[in-house]
Amino acid sequence: MGLVVQKYGGSSVADAEGIKRVAKRIVEAKKNGNQVVVVVSAMGDTTDELIDLAEQVSPIPAGRELDMLLTAGERISMALLAMAIKNLGHEAQSFTGSQAGVITDSVHNKARIIDVTPGRIRTALDEGNICIVAGFQGVSQVGKDITTLGRGGSDTTAVALAAALDAEVCEIYTDVDGVFTADPRVVKKARKIDWISFEDMLELAASGSKVLLHRCVEYARRYNIPIHVRSSFSGLQGTWVSSEPIKPAQSAQHVAQGEPKVEQAIISGVAHDTSEAKITVVGVPDKPGEAASIFRAIADAEINIDMVVQNVSAASTGLTDISFTLPKAEGRKAIDALEKARQVIGFDSLRYDDQIGKISLVGAGMKTNPGVTAGFFEALSDAGVNIELISTSEIRISVVTRKDDVPEAVRAVHSAFGLDSDSDEAVVYGGTGR
Amino acid sequence: MGLVVQKYGGSSVADAEGIKRVAKRIVEAKKNGNQVVVVVSAMGDTTDELIDLAEQVSPIPAGRELDMLLTAGERISMALLAMAIKNLGHEAQSFTGSQAGVITDSVHNKARIIDVTPGRIRTALDEGNICIVAGFQGVSQVGKDITTLGRGGSDTTAVALAAALDAEVCEIYTDVDGVFTADPRVVKKARKIDWISFEDMLELAASGSKVLLHRCVEYARRYNIPIHVRSSFSGLQGTWVSSEPIKPAQSAQHVAQGEPKVEQAIISGVAHDTSEAKITVVGVPDKPGEAASIFRAIADAEINIDMVVQNVSAASTGLTDISFTLPKAEGRKAIDALEKARQVIGFDSLRYDDQIGKISLVGAGMKTNPGVTAGFFEALSDAGVNIELISTSEIRISVVTRKDDVPEAVRAVHSAFGLDSDSDEAVVYGGTGR
Repeated sequence: MGLVVQKYGGSSVADAEGIKRVAKRIVEAKKNGNQVVVVVSAMGDTTDELIDLAEQVSPIPAGRELDMLLTAGERISMALLAMAIKNLGHEAQSFTGSQAGVITDSVHNKARIIDVTPGRIRTALDEGNICIVAGFQGVSQVGKDITTLGRGGSDTTAVALAAALDAEVCEIYTDVDGVFTADPRVVKKARKIDWISFEDMLELAASGSKVLLHRCVEYARRYNIPIHVRSSFSGLQGTWVSSEPIKPAQSAQHVAQGEPKVEQAIISGVAHDTSEAKITVVGVPDKPGEAASIFRAIADAEINIDMVVQNVSAASTGLTDISFTLPKAEGRKAIDALEKARQVIGFDSLRYDDQIGKISLVGAGMKTNPGVTAGFFEALSDAGVNIELISTSEIRISVVTRKDDVPEAVRAVHSAFGLDSDSDEAVVYGGTGR
Repeated sequence: MGLVVQKYGGSSVADAEGIKRVAKRIVEAKKNGNQVVVVVSAMGDTTDELIDLAEQVSPIPAGRELDMLLTAGERISMALLAMAIKNLGHEAQSFTGSQAGVITDSVHNKARIIDVTPGRIRTALDEGNICIVAGFQGVSQVGKDITTLGRGGSDTTAVALAAALDAEVCEIYTDVDGVFTADPRVVKKARKIDWISFEDMLELAASGSKVLLHRCVEYARRYNIPIHVRSSFSGLQGTWVSSEPIKPAQSAQHVAQGEPKVEQAIISGVAHDTSEAKITVVGVPDKPGEAASIFRAIADAEINIDMVVQNVSAASTGLTDISFTLPKAEGRKAIDALEKARQVIGFDSLRYDDQIGKISLVGAGMKTNPGVTAGFFEALSDAGVNIELISTSEIRISVVTRKDDVPEAVRAVHSAFGLDSDSDEAVVYGGTGR
């Protein structure tokens, strides 16, 4: 076969036993005739422990030094993994992000990969080695300083290496069996998805699904690298993320969805997110430029916002309300930024609400199937869930509700769209309403 | 002033508190107008913990991967130390051995430094930074792999950097106040040595003194870098190791020994070592080439031996015995090597004895002062200690005794040569016998 990139997360290599188990799995892939490159995260809670140490010596650790510190985590796991593989009689070498040619910009703690030059990896592969590469880290193009890619960066490292090495697949091993139609902790009947398109996966990731990060999927999509998300514990087929549905030859398991039929909406899943808060700017003059001045103030404070809704203006007052959602952690900063711009914007008051949740339904062809939207709202209504904000894209509908309503809302929508695992209903949702 | 290299061992940076304490001391040196380069070891027991992890995944961890693993230790301590310094309002940057230009050969786990090219350090210093460098590690000239220098390698890193940067002094901070006239755990009256020559320090290190490693002193002597061994806890003046006695201007404390007087022996101290074993090759034909064939067999097994003694041949048999000492850990290997060469060598039997100890008296001008040797043997005799082997150099006398006799022997010799701290006798030992 060809070249496979595998990525193992921290929970898969949490201790010596885990490392030995993973080593066996890697050797299997090698025995199957593949060249194997493995990207590995830090063991278990190592990164959190290092951050804790950093905070003990400095309340605001310097970015450059924090990166130097955190990269010790992968150095430990990758060296141990290489030893464990060699102990099984196979050649293996570990490489830091820098040695593997992961070149980044200079933004410490959340660097972006700008180039991958895996010359040493290619050479080591050709010499028969299994290559173990530190995830999450690189070296800055200017200054040659050690950088980290931020949380979830190991997935991105794996996809970037897969692209640079022209790998057949990037296998992301994790502690769950794949991507599910909803969070299995909330929806007991959630089903594993066999295949999902890059686009749908991007929307799920943006809507609160934590299995793959948005950034990693974006990278895979740009370079068209199929991702296979699977469990490092079970050995089962997981979820394939790719541009085209994978064929049975590539996947041992039948792909339930088959080829998508034109004009039908394919529902991928229901995502939810309770990490956001809502800010409402009350009593904004309903005239051109008002919204712009609000979001300029927010953007200048480097805050990413998610959903935005402007209410209909009350004709009698000429005033309107503008609401938006944003990560809770940014709440304080946003309020401060708006208060500072109060004179310019000219609003009455601000309302901050962190007891909200977002439920999103993701699937291709949704916009051209009005039945989907109707079915979504009906399901929520039947479950007695009140909708506070609505936002839609080509392949997603999201609503904001009370936080306490989220689990019930997710289950109701999951069931209404035939996603429950014991249901005989097709996953394909025809545009006929319900 | 000029450029100072400081080295802090693992016990000085064992936890966040230790790191913050060391950071303050470093900032003091900077405030005194120095450019400061700091070499740091891994925190506390980190290295041992990592070795333990390695042994859990592989009984014989691969050298390259073990080096990759162990270098994570300094990466953690150096990043934390840089953060702690920045938190005190001073600029600091940490550098790996590779970044600091520590170029080594390719012998993993015990690499030797072959060049130091500290261009990045020099630049960072000129930009006003305090530079924190990982001890114990480098990068191989061929292959660009991460290497480690073996135990005690951080001291060598510090001296090598001091040489490459033309530092005024290399300060080695440790958990004791300096080099003592004997091990204070054995001799309560041992005194701290204010100044000692490179040569005497080399002999002490070779004879069992653990404060500085032989290799590090050798490096300092070659490049004539003064070493100041001192406590990271007390702030007191420690022990200066240099080619010439330091002048009061350099040391806040009076140098007790003063300038050495010609024709007098200056006793530096008493060292002891109980880590060796003795092998006696019994019944060797007393003819040319016999000793050579024995030590060829030992050398081929890559075993370093220490003392060698050949007994006077018994005229009646034409047979003699040859004894030598070596590290206990090498005992098994040496016995095996000799047994394998038994036919060639033609000895009767082998005796192995690991219940021995070595006591050494070190001081300049000893050989030309026969009184020193006599006084040494008399002191042992008075203490009822039997001597089994004797070996001398220009500035050292060593004897092997029963292991149990070592503490008493060390105390007796220490006292006899006026080294006890409450004694009024001069440290200068005139060549008059006693």
